[in-house]
Amino acid sequence: MQAVTFQAPGEVRIEERPEPELLERDDAVVRVEATGVCGSDLHIYHGRVQIEPGFTLGHEFVGTVVAAGDAVTEVAEGDRVLGCYCSACGNCFFCRRGNFHKCDEGRVFGHGKTLGSLQGAQAEQVLVPHANLTLRGVPEGMSDDAALFAGDVMGTGWHAVDQAGIRPGDSAAVLGLGPVGLCAVQAAKAAGAAKVIAIDTVADRLDVAARFGAQPVHLTEEDPRAAVKLATEGRGVDAAIDAVGHPDALDLAARVTRKAGTVSAIGVHAERIQVHMGVVWIKALTLKTGHANVIGHVDRVLAMMSAGVLDPTPLVTHHMPLAEASDAYAVYDRREALKIVMTP
Amino acid sequence: MQAVTFQAPGEVRIEERPEPELLERDDAVVRVEATGVCGSDLHIYHGRVQIEPGFTLGHEFVGTVVAAGDAVTEVAEGDRVLGCYCSACGNCFFCRRGNFHKCDEGRVFGHGKTLGSLQGAQAEQVLVPHANLTLRGVPEGMSDDAALFAGDVMGTGWHAVDQAGIRPGDSAAVLGLGPVGLCAVQAAKAAGAAKVIAIDTVADRLDVAARFGAQPVHLTEEDPRAAVKLATEGRGVDAAIDAVGHPDALDLAARVTRKAGTVSAIGVHAERIQVHMGVVWIKALTLKTGHANVIGHVDRVLAMMSAGVLDPTPLVTHHMPLAEASDAYAVYDRREALKIVMTP
Amino acid sequence: MQAVTFQAPGEVRIEERPEPELLERDDAVVRVEATGVCGSDLHIYHGRVQIEPGFTLGHEFVGTVVAAGDAVTEVAEGDRVLGCYCSACGNCFFCRRGNFHKCDEGRVFGHGKTLGSLQGAQAEQVLVPHANLTLRGVPEGMSDDAALFAGDVMGTGWHAVDQAGIRPGDSAAVLGLGPVGLCAVQAAKAAGAAKVIAIDTVADRLDVAARFGAQPVHLTEEDPRAAVKLATEGRGVDAAIDAVGHPDALDLAARVTRKAGTVSAIGVHAERIQVHMGVVWIKALTLKTGHANVIGHVDRVLAMMSAGVLDPTPLVTHHMPLAEASDAYAVYDRREALKIVMTP
Amino acid sequence: MQAVTFQAPGEVRIEERPEPELLERDDAVVRVEATGVCGSDLHIYHGRVQIEPGFTLGHEFVGTVVAAGDAVTEVAEGDRVLGCYCSACGNCFFCRRGNFHKCDEGRVFGHGKTLGSLQGAQAEQVLVPHANLTLRGVPEGMSDDAALFAGDVMGTGWHAVDQAGIRPGDSAAVLGLGPVGLCAVQAAKAAGAAKVIAIDTVADRLDVAARFGAQPVHLTEEDPRAAVKLATEGRGVDAAIDAVGHPDALDLAARVTRKAGTVSAIGVHAERIQVHMGVVWIKALTLKTGHANVIGHVDRVLAMMSAGVLDPTPLVTHHMPLAEASDAYAVYDRREALKIVMTP
Repeated sequence: MQAVTFQAPGEVRIEERPEPELLERDDAVVRVEATGVCGSDLHIYHGRVQIEPGFTLGHEFVGTVVAAGDAVTEVAEGDRVLGCYCSACGNCFFCRRGNFHKCDEGRVFGHGKTLGSLQGAQAEQVLVPHANLTLRGVPEGMSDDAALFAGDVMGTGWHAVDQAGIRPGDSAAVLGLGPVGLCAVQAAKAAGAAKVIAIDTVADRLDVAARFGAQPVHLTEEDPRAAVKLATEGRGVDAAIDAVGHPDALDLAARVTRKAGTVSAIGVHAERIQVHMGVVWIKALTLKTGHANVIGHVDRVLAMMSAGVLDPTPLVTHHMPLAEASDAYAVYDRREALKIVMTP
Repeated sequence: MQAVTFQAPGEVRIEERPEPELLERDDAVVRVEATGVCGSDLHIYHGRVQIEPGFTLGHEFVGTVVAAGDAVTEVAEGDRVLGCYCSACGNCFFCRRGNFHKCDEGRVFGHGKTLGSLQGAQAEQVLVPHANLTLRGVPEGMSDDAALFAGDVMGTGWHAVDQAGIRPGDSAAVLGLGPVGLCAVQAAKAAGAAKVIAIDTVADRLDVAARFGAQPVHLTEEDPRAAVKLATEGRGVDAAIDAVGHPDALDLAARVTRKAGTVSAIGVHAERIQVHMGVVWIKALTLKTGHANVIGHVDRVLAMMSAGVLDPTPLVTHHMPLAEASDAYAVYDRREALKIVMTP
Repeated sequence: MQAVTFQAPGEVRIEERPEPELLERDDAVVRVEATGVCGSDLHIYHGRVQIEPGFTLGHEFVGTVVAAGDAVTEVAEGDRVLGCYCSACGNCFFCRRGNFHKCDEGRVFGHGKTLGSLQGAQAEQVLVPHANLTLRGVPEGMSDDAALFAGDVMGTGWHAVDQAGIRPGDSAAVLGLGPVGLCAVQAAKAAGAAKVIAIDTVADRLDVAARFGAQPVHLTEEDPRAAVKLATEGRGVDAAIDAVGHPDALDLAARVTRKAGTVSAIGVHAERIQVHMGVVWIKALTLKTGHANVIGHVDRVLAMMSAGVLDPTPLVTHHMPLAEASDAYAVYDRREALKIVMTP
Repeated sequence: MQAVTFQAPGEVRIEERPEPELLERDDAVVRVEATGVCGSDLHIYHGRVQIEPGFTLGHEFVGTVVAAGDAVTEVAEGDRVLGCYCSACGNCFFCRRGNFHKCDEGRVFGHGKTLGSLQGAQAEQVLVPHANLTLRGVPEGMSDDAALFAGDVMGTGWHAVDQAGIRPGDSAAVLGLGPVGLCAVQAAKAAGAAKVIAIDTVADRLDVAARFGAQPVHLTEEDPRAAVKLATEGRGVDAAIDAVGHPDALDLAARVTRKAGTVSAIGVHAERIQVHMGVVWIKALTLKTGHANVIGHVDRVLAMMSAGVLDPTPLVTHHMPLAEASDAYAVYDRREALKIVMTP
C-alpha cells in the first residue's frame, strides 16, 4: 500500500509499505478514506520533533474497518469510523481516572518511536491499537471532512475550552487562530460564552473567528489588553486560551484574564521559559496545561458536531490526493491552508 | 401610588397605597416601569397560596432607582435596574455559601407574611431590601421586556439547566412548556445541549420550543418515552427537567433519563407523593430540587441575554397598563398569555 | 471444587462444581482464600431476590490468580488479589464516563441470570471476567479480612460518602448501622467530617459507630431530629446517608438535612414509596441514589485502607470454614454477626 | 491605646494611638486579647514589602467586640470573635462568586496604603470593616491560641489543600514546613490524604510534620524526588503544595507531581521566574496560585478545629506581652519560633 513517509527535514515521500495486520486481539485495521495534515506534522517536517526516516506520518483519519480482532466490541468490520490521534489502554491508573491522554501506554500515530512507534494514518491503511477506545463510528450523515476533526483538532479545541472551565455567560479570549484556536472559538461559543475575543495577526483567520461569533482583535494593529478591558468592564476575561504555545502568548493570556480566572495553555510548550509569576499569583490564576484528552471527549464532540452545535468544515481549505502529499506539506508549510484533507 | 392588591381568590384590585420609604441603610426604592404577571401569582390568585387581603402582588420588575440608602453601593439613584424575585441578606450561613435562595432571612416580593411580608412590585414603586444583591443594573440596550425575565423566569429556567448539570453535547428533556419550561429549553441550548426534547400538550408551546431549537413531542398524541429512546440510542437523556411540579411529570422525567443521569425538579412540589424509588434507584439517578437561586445566577443570565445567547422576548405575548391588572390576571388565568408585561 | 449454592429460600448447600476455565482473553481464575457473607446474600437467602437453584453464591473474595488470559495486563498469575462485587466492560458509554456500576454489560457475582449469570465467589475458585478492571492486587501487608471489604462493603460505604459530597468540616448523619452504614461512618470521618451522627436501634452497632468517631443516637429511645438540630445550630446536617433502604429512613434523612444539602440513598430501594416532596423541594435538597461504583472507587479505597485512614477489620465478627456455609448463613440471618469471613 | 508600629526595616515600636471609632455602619471595634506575629509581617520588617512608618502592624487577632455598627448582624457587642486577615465587601463581582480574597475593595490589616490603609491588629483595639464577613464568633471551648489560626495561617494551609483538590486516599507533597506548610500537612491529612510527604531542611519542622502524620523528607540530605517515587509506585503525588514561594520550590513541586496532577502554589510569588513549562505541559499539570480565600473558608476551618480534625496549637511556641513586640519580631526573625502569640 502507499504511505506518506518522513525522510528528512523538509522532505516527505510516498513509499510502498506492507498492509498492516492485526497483532493484538483488540486491534483493528482501517482502510483510510480521508486523512489530514496537521500543525503537529509540521513540527516533524521541520525537524523540531525527530522521528525515524521512513516512518509513516499522520494522525487524523476517517475510513472503514477492514479487520477487527475478536476483542473489538465497539466497532465492527465494515463500519465507517474515525480515529483519535492517540491510543490508550483503558486499564492503567490514568485511564481508570479518565485521563486517557496520559495513559501509561499511550501511543500517538505517526510520531516515531518516542511516542510509541505507531505507524501513521497518511496511508491506504492503518493499524489501530485498542480499537474500542481509539475508534468511534461516524454518526450518520457526517462528512469525512467533519469527522476528521473529532479525533484531533476539534477534540483539542474543545479540551482547551473544557479545561478553561468556560460556562454559559462567561467571557473568553483565544490567542492564536490556527485550526485549534478557531475550533476553540467555536467550542467556547457552543459552551455558551457570551463574549469571545479572538486574537491573531492574520486577517483571514480573524475573519473566520468573526464568522464563528468572536470579536476579532489584531494582535499588533490593535491593543488586545485594551480591547479585553473594554469588553469586560475593566476586569479581564473569565478564561484565556493560549493556542500558540509561545511565552508571549502565555504572558498575554495571563494579563488579559481576570482575578481568579483560568489560563488554558493548549499550545505546546516544551521549554524553560520566563513566566511572570508575580502577575499569575497576585491574580490567583489557575493554569491548565497539556495535550488534549481527545478519547475522553470524542463522544461529546461528535454529539455536538452531529447536532450542528460545532461545525469545523469551514476550516477545510484544501482537498488533495494522498499521492500529492509532498505538495500538501509544502502548501501547509507556507501557511496557505487551514486544513488539508488528503484522499488515498 | 397605585398598587395591585389581592382581595380574595379570583379577585385582585388596584388600590391606593403610600409610597414606600427607606427603612434600612441598604434599602432602595424603585419606580416601577414594567412588572410581570407570573405563574406564581396565579397560585395566590387561586387561593392555593394564602396571603393577606390587601397585600400588594408581584415579584418581577424593571425600573429606576429613586432612593437608595447610604450602604447601597452597587446601584445608585437614577440607575435603570431590574429586581430579583426575592431578597437575601448576603451574610448568613447559606448566603456565604452562595445559596442565596435559601437565605435565612430571604423574603419574596408580593407573597404575604409567610414569605417575609415584602410588598409586591405590581405597583408604581417598590421598596427593595438588600438592594446590593436584589437589584442589578440593566445592561445598555436591553429592553424592559427582556430585563424583566432575568430576575425571575429566565433565572429559573437557567437554574433548572444548571442544576441538571447539562453540558455541551448532552441530551436533555424538558417536561412542561410554560414560560419557565421554555426558558429552560433556551438555556439548555445555550449550554450547548446537542438534543433537547420538549414535551407538552399545547401546540403553541410546542411550536415555540421548536423555534428555540428543541424537538417538540406531544405528551399524549405522541409517545415521549419512545421519542427519547429513538433520539438517544435507547439510553435516555442525560438530564430531564420537570418544569410542571406534578407527580406524573416527575415520574416521566425519571423514566426518560438515562442511568446515572439527573432529574431537575424546578416545578413546585409541595405534597407527599408516590415516587417509584425502584426506578430512580436502579438507574442511580440524581434528583435536584427547589426554588431557583436567581440572585446567584443573575449576572450570568444577564451576560447571556446581553450577548443574545438567551432571548426571552418571544415569550411576551401581552402588554397591558397596570390599571388593567384585574383583566391581566383573568387573561393569564385563562392561559391565553405566556407572559403579560404591565406598565404603571 | 466445593461451592456454596442456593437451593431454596432459607437453604444453601455445599455442592461439588467443576473448576472454572478461562472463556475470554481478559478473564482470570482466582483461587479463593477468603469470601464474605453480605447483606445482599440474605436478600437471596430470603427469596426476595430470586435466583436459580444450584447457582453459586457470593460476591466478596480475596485470593490468588491461578490463570489469566493473555489480555490480562493489570494482574498476573500468582498475584494476591481482591475482587469487586461486579464486573464492567470498560468500553461502553457508561464505562467511558467512569460509571462502571451502570455498565451496559455489568454482571454481579453470585446473583443468577438476572444480573448476568456470573457464578459466585463462595467457592474454591471463581471465574473473573474483565479481570483488568474487576481485580486489584492486594497491597502489601493488608490482611484478607481487610481486603475483602475494598471491593464491596467499604467501597459502598465510601460511595455513599462520596456522592453525598461530604467535605472536611461538614456535618453528616448516617441512618442504619449495618456494615455499610458503619463503613460510611468511617469514610465520612476519613473525609474530614467534623460531626457524624450515627442512628440505629442496636446498641452494639451504636457502640461501634462511637468507636469510629461518630455521635451515636438511638432511633427510638432518643430523638434523632432534636439531636441533629442541637449539633448543627438548628440547621440540620450538610448530608444524610440512608443506609437502610426503607421509606422511613429516607424520610428521616430528608428531615435531618439542612437546606440545600444532600441525601445519599445507598440502601436499596426497589419499590414505589411515599416521599414528602414538599419537604425535599422547599429545602432544595439533592438526592443521590443507586448501587456503589466500586470499580471506580477501589484504588482510592485501597489507598485509604493501606494508609490506615480506613480500617474495616473491627467489623469482622466471625471466621468460619466454607464447608460450614449453611451455618454461616443461619448466623448472619439471626443478625448475630456484622461480617462473616469464610475460608475454603 | 498601645499599638505595634513599623518604623524602619528591622525596627518596630510600641506607640500610643487613639482608640478606633466606628466609621461605617457595618464596622466593629474589637478589643484585642491575642494577636500573632506572622511570616508576612517579616516581609514588612525586612523592608521587602514597604509600608508607611508609624503604621500599625498585625493581621491575626482574637478578642471581644466592644462596638458594632447597626448593620452588623452576625456578631454583637460582647461576643468573643476572631478576625480574618483581610476584609471583603460581600457585594462586588468577586465576592458574589465567593472569591472574597479577590474582592475589588479588599483590604489587609496592617499592610499600609498599598493594601487598603487598614491599621493592624497588634494593638489594644482594632477597627474591623465589613464585620459581618471579616469576623466570626469563636466556638465555645476554643482557645485564643487556636482561634488565632483560623483567620490566617490555618485558613491558608487549608486553602492550599482545597485548591490542590486533595481528596481521601490521595498522595500529596508539601514543600516548606513553616507554619503554613505545617498547617497544610495537617489539612491534607484531615482531607483524608493517604500519604503526605513533607519536605524541608529544618529537623524540628520535619519532626512536627511527622507528628502530624506526614512522611518527613530532608530536602538536601535525602532525595525528595526518589522518596516521592518510592511512595507512589513511581508515579508522583496527586498534588504538591509549594509553601515556600521560591522558583526552586515551584520547580520541585512540578517534578514530584504525577501526570494530570495539581501544583498548589500558596507561597508568595512576586517576580518573573524561569518555569520549565516543558515539564509542566507534558505532564498536563494544573497550577493553582494566589492568596488564601480565608473568608470563604473560615466556617469550614472553624468546624474542623472545633471537632479536633485540625489542631494548630502545637505550632504556638511563644507567648509574649504586646509590650515586648520588638523582642517578638527579633525572635521570629531569628526563626526561633513557629508562632508567637502576643497579649495586650
